[in-house]
Amino acid sequence: MTTIIPVPSNTPELNVSPRLLLGPGPSTVDPRILRAQTTPLLGHLDPWFIELMDHTQELLRYAFQTENRFTIPISGTGSAAMEAAVANMVEPGDGVLVCASGYFGLRLADMAQRYRGNVKIITCPWGQVFKEEEVSEALKSHPSKVVCIVHAETSTGAKQPLDQIISIAHAAGAIVIVDAVTSLGGIPLFVDRQDIDVCYSGSQKCLSCPPGMSPITLGERAVEKLTARKTSVPNWYLDLKVVQQYWGKERTYHHTAPISNVYGFYEALRIVAEEGLENRWQRHRKNAELFWNGLTEINLSCHVEEKYRLESLTTVRVPENVEEPIVRSLLLNEYNIEVGGGLGELKGKVWRVGLMGYSSRRENIILLLAALKEILKN
Amino acid sequence: MTTIIPVPSNTPELNVSPRLLLGPGPSTVDPRILRAQTTPLLGHLDPWFIELMDHTQELLRYAFQTENRFTIPISGTGSAAMEAAVANMVEPGDGVLVCASGYFGLRLADMAQRYRGNVKIITCPWGQVFKEEEVSEALKSHPSKVVCIVHAETSTGAKQPLDQIISIAHAAGAIVIVDAVTSLGGIPLFVDRQDIDVCYSGSQKCLSCPPGMSPITLGERAVEKLTARKTSVPNWYLDLKVVQQYWGKERTYHHTAPISNVYGFYEALRIVAEEGLENRWQRHRKNAELFWNGLTEINLSCHVEEKYRLESLTTVRVPENVEEPIVRSLLLNEYNIEVGGGLGELKGKVWRVGLMGYSSRRENIILLLAALKEILKN
Repeated sequence: MTTIIPVPSNTPELNVSPRLLLGPGPSTVDPRILRAQTTPLLGHLDPWFIELMDHTQELLRYAFQTENRFTIPISGTGSAAMEAAVANMVEPGDGVLVCASGYFGLRLADMAQRYRGNVKIITCPWGQVFKEEEVSEALKSHPSKVVCIVHAETSTGAKQPLDQIISIAHAAGAIVIVDAVTSLGGIPLFVDRQDIDVCYSGSQKCLSCPPGMSPITLGERAVEKLTARKTSVPNWYLDLKVVQQYWGKERTYHHTAPISNVYGFYEALRIVAEEGLENRWQRHRKNAELFWNGLTEINLSCHVEEKYRLESLTTVRVPENVEEPIVRSLLLNEYNIEVGGGLGELKGKVWRVGLMGYSSRRENIILLLAALKEILKN
Repeated sequence: MTTIIPVPSNTPELNVSPRLLLGPGPSTVDPRILRAQTTPLLGHLDPWFIELMDHTQELLRYAFQTENRFTIPISGTGSAAMEAAVANMVEPGDGVLVCASGYFGLRLADMAQRYRGNVKIITCPWGQVFKEEEVSEALKSHPSKVVCIVHAETSTGAKQPLDQIISIAHAAGAIVIVDAVTSLGGIPLFVDRQDIDVCYSGSQKCLSCPPGMSPITLGERAVEKLTARKTSVPNWYLDLKVVQQYWGKERTYHHTAPISNVYGFYEALRIVAEEGLENRWQRHRKNAELFWNGLTEINLSCHVEEKYRLESLTTVRVPENVEEPIVRSLLLNEYNIEVGGGLGELKGKVWRVGLMGYSSRRENIILLLAALKEILKN
């Protein structure tokens, strides 16, 4: 009964440096959300908690602009919702077309392969978007039941126009999975009007909530495909048929919901509703333009052409003869500002600046631009 | 650009009834942990956060009583760690023996089947435990690479002796997965001394942290089996080889860690270390005995014989002519106390009372016994 492994000698009080989070996520969290996370716990089957779940779903439908009954937060960070989408929609052997315009598109392809889809990947240069013809041609040579596409590519800063591609996919009999991790709550997204079948996001981007919840919504075609599955979903935790029995009328226990995360997520959605989606989209747009104009003034440029440039995440080109990681570490250590480095093809070539949710504020942009100017002049 | 779905009409302030959580989990959370969750966010690759990850792993090794390098919290609730264990250890076709003494054993079997193991399930009456002979005979008729067994069955309140069974499994060439969801931090568990290959738990039981993190540890045999896999893990989010590259020296980004949950989890582990495991186990034992004696005094009895009775979760038999759900709902609505109902075979037959972590306190037991006495005399 005696322990052998001793208590570690150094278990310091939790201390953090007050970072301004302007990277690809998490974004700075609204203090109201942090406060919500201190609420004493309810059980996951408590009637008070169940009422909160209902309110959360209603607010989430507003944020997604959908009337889909099947609209819930998954108990995990953004990639968990991505995996839930793929695991539930792809059956072994299904034709799957993945439009990978960056790192997160490739992650979708990796997942679709793990779920034994018959996967075709099309790519475009990082920072650009797909044209309709590319998708329609790919669907001709590779008939698909599922098309996956990223709305806001966090690795490239490009915003993919969706409407034509969704029509093409539907005409070819496929359902469409849209990754809206870096768009939900920051840039216009209309799940119903745009006829998106499966859409998912993360809590830690434009919703400015800590990571740990990832919302997903399924339209009618997706629910039909799920119901018609011939094989069971080869993932227990993310099996949406049973997860939905907890969030739906049955209230059947599946896994224990992360209570504090749901509290925070609910508060985040309340804040979105108070501001109103249109106002929120406008704020993100206005602040993005302020930042882009400021970059020009200090002789920096954006990697993505303006037409396809994402308001929530900007890829800034690293000038020649500048060491990318050094600038990033000076920003962090001397100014307490976090920005991201490039991923994959863009490693060393760009900084990734997120202006998302609570972080999308004029004063943050002024500070970041001033800091960049100081660092780069040396 | 105009929204169609309007803001919901009713999005009330987050309010909760102050529940005393004496069910099967979550347990009442220590206010220090709730406070830790208000700490402003760091990025998931921030040097300050990486230092915190190291401290968290050290404390977790202490809690598990292991020196396993591979000791991390999974970004999901308890079932996510269960699935991580199964998904990574079971390859298609592998013989798997699941010793299912209750609901959570059956969940392990469900998962092992989804990962296409060649699964044999042995069962025992709910509330009892397995004898060595049952396991050794099952292994003779069903050669297995993996044996799954639940240490503390939350659905039955029984505590499974492990040592002999682990020896038998090892002698038969199998690795052993132990579910310690309701034992870690509450009753004696020594991962190294007991030679457990894979052990996992949840944050919301005896660690008294909100649900959302689930710790797991892998010993040498398990790491070898993982490394030698011929097929990729058919689960992206829980693929431990790549998750470990984030928690290990490489610090390669996999998924965004749930920062606030890690803060809370770290604080929970600090509290365990401050109290000390031996003291904590003794407190759980002493309070469990106080409760069991008190039950006798009000003519209630335990479902599990004392020898195998779990200190952290007691199954109390529902007396004849008493309506189980009515008592539970009176406890909740009139006394603000949550206890659990029976699951599966024990539905309607027992109440499940958790005395875990911060909830394991003398005053809680006195209140619960007094409330039960009042309710049952009517």
